[in-house]
Amino acid sequence: MKIALAQINPTIGAFSANLAKMIRMAEEARDRGCQLVVFPELAICGYPPRDLLERPEFVAANLEATEALVKATKGITLICGFVDLVREKGGKPLRNATLVAQDGKVLARAYKRLLPTYDVFDETRYFEPGKTATVTEIGGIPFGLSICEDIWNDADFFPSPLYDLDPVAELVATGAKIVVNISASPFYLGKGHLRERLLCHLSAKYQRPFLYCNQVGADDHLIFDGHSLVADKGKVLARAASFKEDLLIFDLAAEKGPMAPYFERDDEEALEALTLGIRDYFSKTGFSLAVVGLSGGIDSSVTAALAVRALGAEGVLGVLMPSPYTSRASMEDAQALATALGIQTKTIAITRIYQEYRVCLEGALGEPPGDITDQNIQARIRGNLLMALANQYRGLVLCTGNKAEFAVGYCTLYGDMCGALSVLADVPKLMVYKLGRLINAQHGKKIIPERVFIKAPSAELKPNQKDEDDLPAYILLDTLVKGYVEELKSPEDLLASGLPPESLEQTLKMIYRAEYKRWQAAPGLKITAKAFGYGRRYPIAHGFDPLKFRNRRVL
Amino acid sequence: MKIALAQINPTIGAFSANLAKMIRMAEEARDRGCQLVVFPELAICGYPPRDLLERPEFVAANLEATEALVKATKGITLICGFVDLVREKGGKPLRNATLVAQDGKVLARAYKRLLPTYDVFDETRYFEPGKTATVTEIGGIPFGLSICEDIWNDADFFPSPLYDLDPVAELVATGAKIVVNISASPFYLGKGHLRERLLCHLSAKYQRPFLYCNQVGADDHLIFDGHSLVADKGKVLARAASFKEDLLIFDLAAEKGPMAPYFERDDEEALEALTLGIRDYFSKTGFSLAVVGLSGGIDSSVTAALAVRALGAEGVLGVLMPSPYTSRASMEDAQALATALGIQTKTIAITRIYQEYRVCLEGALGEPPGDITDQNIQARIRGNLLMALANQYRGLVLCTGNKAEFAVGYCTLYGDMCGALSVLADVPKLMVYKLGRLINAQHGKKIIPERVFIKAPSAELKPNQKDEDDLPAYILLDTLVKGYVEELKSPEDLLASGLPPESLEQTLKMIYRAEYKRWQAAPGLKITAKAFGYGRRYPIAHGFDPLKFRNRRVL
Repeated sequence: MKIALAQINPTIGAFSANLAKMIRMAEEARDRGCQLVVFPELAICGYPPRDLLERPEFVAANLEATEALVKATKGITLICGFVDLVREKGGKPLRNATLVAQDGKVLARAYKRLLPTYDVFDETRYFEPGKTATVTEIGGIPFGLSICEDIWNDADFFPSPLYDLDPVAELVATGAKIVVNISASPFYLGKGHLRERLLCHLSAKYQRPFLYCNQVGADDHLIFDGHSLVADKGKVLARAASFKEDLLIFDLAAEKGPMAPYFERDDEEALEALTLGIRDYFSKTGFSLAVVGLSGGIDSSVTAALAVRALGAEGVLGVLMPSPYTSRASMEDAQALATALGIQTKTIAITRIYQEYRVCLEGALGEPPGDITDQNIQARIRGNLLMALANQYRGLVLCTGNKAEFAVGYCTLYGDMCGALSVLADVPKLMVYKLGRLINAQHGKKIIPERVFIKAPSAELKPNQKDEDDLPAYILLDTLVKGYVEELKSPEDLLASGLPPESLEQTLKMIYRAEYKRWQAAPGLKITAKAFGYGRRYPIAHGFDPLKFRNRRVL
Repeated sequence: MKIALAQINPTIGAFSANLAKMIRMAEEARDRGCQLVVFPELAICGYPPRDLLERPEFVAANLEATEALVKATKGITLICGFVDLVREKGGKPLRNATLVAQDGKVLARAYKRLLPTYDVFDETRYFEPGKTATVTEIGGIPFGLSICEDIWNDADFFPSPLYDLDPVAELVATGAKIVVNISASPFYLGKGHLRERLLCHLSAKYQRPFLYCNQVGADDHLIFDGHSLVADKGKVLARAASFKEDLLIFDLAAEKGPMAPYFERDDEEALEALTLGIRDYFSKTGFSLAVVGLSGGIDSSVTAALAVRALGAEGVLGVLMPSPYTSRASMEDAQALATALGIQTKTIAITRIYQEYRVCLEGALGEPPGDITDQNIQARIRGNLLMALANQYRGLVLCTGNKAEFAVGYCTLYGDMCGALSVLADVPKLMVYKLGRLINAQHGKKIIPERVFIKAPSAELKPNQKDEDDLPAYILLDTLVKGYVEELKSPEDLLASGLPPESLEQTLKMIYRAEYKRWQAAPGLKITAKAFGYGRRYPIAHGFDPLKFRNRRVL
């Protein structure tokens, strides 16, 4: 039997477009001799639809499109994710569902059994879990149906399983000879390798093939990498492309299928992920111009280069906004970058506006604005100008801050935090440098000037300012943020690993204090296991002292 | 038996302060002859702790404080909410728990069985549900233990129960003669009456008393109204105060206990709720000065008056920022308001700064900024100035927009959307007027000038601008937003109720298009059943057309 994993990039709620794409893919699979075509989790409506699921019109449209897909798919068996509506007394009416259909008839329906609620997931908000294992025959072979999280609770693979049931074991016990998993699995660095290891483990443990079909594309802050695959006997036998649509065709009788290359290096993977994140945000919101403030620093340089990768040079406007504190080197580097990227620029000196603010404020205050006030004013003037250019040219501003800055709040709300999308919000500072190096290497020339890599980072909001006067060194900050925020290590553990106590104290205080800024931050593209934003939900007003309570004995 | 419902206002994670308050309350209850003192849901750590629950140090500190409370409470039985840690294989380790303790010993523990996941709730993100009904004897009487949502699934009261089990029925079946519910139930207008009806219904249905102890206070966007009560035989027998701490003491042998007044009018209740929301946000974040831009319009007038109610006149700074488009009447009204409130003001004309922006932008654009660009510039200048004053005086800016504006995006991101807290974000426009009238009535004089109520609302960002040139009339807009956003009515239903099709189309389009602004909005105090923000989670990038798909037949 030949099967096709149709790794599509749906747009949430764009039912006609998603349907047309799926019909096209199913026809191609059939024409290429496949007996089965598999689409991702919630493929018909796109994942995650979030509270659109509360709208009965949305659910109805999804059911209509699903029915249309079932009717239109001829000469090939279909497996597809959709939202099902099951009216029972007690419990939620919606199910995260999959169906098997043939010749216009639905042969089986199965419901997602494990509903994730950690990090960015809210699935129990919408869905009732499936209660039983569903196995259905296709071409005489019993296929076990599972959805995303259903395969992620193997007690041999994960030492602390999150749920008290294992749907894969139940599918196998129910007679499944092949396990299909349809998925919409948000990307983070390292997840692809983890996923391959898991699927290899499962296929070895159960001695049967696993077919894994994942969504590709980006939705707001989430990126989906695709990377669909077939695993059997502990090995990956076929692999779809990452970060783009693909139709992976595999013959169950064969030893091997197409094998798209996968990433060995984090920076290469991050580069593709972020590019897709920008591209889809623009295309799915209907914009084509990115407005990027160019400071001559590494963050804005990398952001602009990523935007050019995603939208083309004609899709990016660089904006230079020098102040009295801007160094000549910064302006030269920003201009050199823009020239190398081939993007248009606008230059607007903020000095006169800034002076006018100072005059007005000094009049009102009876004294000159203080240091922090004065720095923030400059950042907010730039934010206002960027937004004005975006308004004028119908573009979207890209926010250029990195994860270390967002962690400690080293950024100005309504200033450099302005933007429709925050490209580097989940990228540690040292990874920003690595991305810059990679961009230059890929171009085979210095797109980003060498000086940008070697000069000390500075916000240039007052004379001779350096980031490291206000913050721990970035190598330390990245490590602390990864340990405390991503890995949930305790202060003790971080100290035990040799981090200096004063940097730890300073950083933890800043992390908690900056919560109010992050509440109002633009969506930031998630590329680590724990990004700030939707997947990390902290109160602003609270009295928890992270330094006072450490790893105390739990009573 | 005399029992005390200790309706406290904890601060999230402020374990020492919460513990000290609880010990004080327990001692007072004992000294007043009570045998039992009851504290709210998660009282020891405050509700909702959100992702602080992911930090083991937080959970450990909560357990330590709980143990300290148990040890310190002498001569009285204690019922208290806390986070319990239960290590089992599979499933989440945390429980939303309650305990019964006496003489330093824990007699019983019970776990919340129904974990809400709708609106602002994410409880399955953190907790494993309790599996059994817990009834424990106190003074020879079997008490049934329940937590918040556990009592909200009565199939006689709610036609479509959300869960397939009813913990109250199980408690009664297990022998409970009295049902205790500890709660942290976020306030919205009308919820108090609903809660009283539910508890009266339950007490009549089961013919036994219900003791309901609710948290009071505000945490970020959520307000908790307190309003603890005792219901028996279908009647409220005792009621604690609303919107402030209280110790409600009730003798089970008595026919009646203390009966704090409750609100008959929505506007009176909203006024108290919003005042508490502001007060607690400031006190729990450690600020005491609110900075409010005064435009002379109703929204900023009501916001300033609420801030004075919450923080006192010395805690509010009014800022007047006239432009060439500001009418003399607006400035007079803003000044009259400030004088009547007794608050300090600063006046900063934005004209020169604005002109400087226009010059700079015209230079960069080669033409004058367009209409929308130009309006946004002005709003963002004001945002920058307000933030500068807040920075300088260590205050917090209050955002003054109302719910109708946020719904349709009639507000400027980084402009009038600036602020630490958005006071009226969940207040419909007509309710803002009602609040203004009530404020004047309560003061017995025109704090807010009469002209503010009768002039046509205008952003005054261009000559002769009126809100109703760009938007449907506010009475229509409020109705549409309530119907579509709060009540989830379909477009058909809204049309059938007589709303004009063109207003509906325009409004729905604007609601969806404004999602990107709301993503970056300040926390807004929730006073309706569905506020924008944390309890309403929509994608920004999507292709759903709310007008195309209506109430189609569900297949």
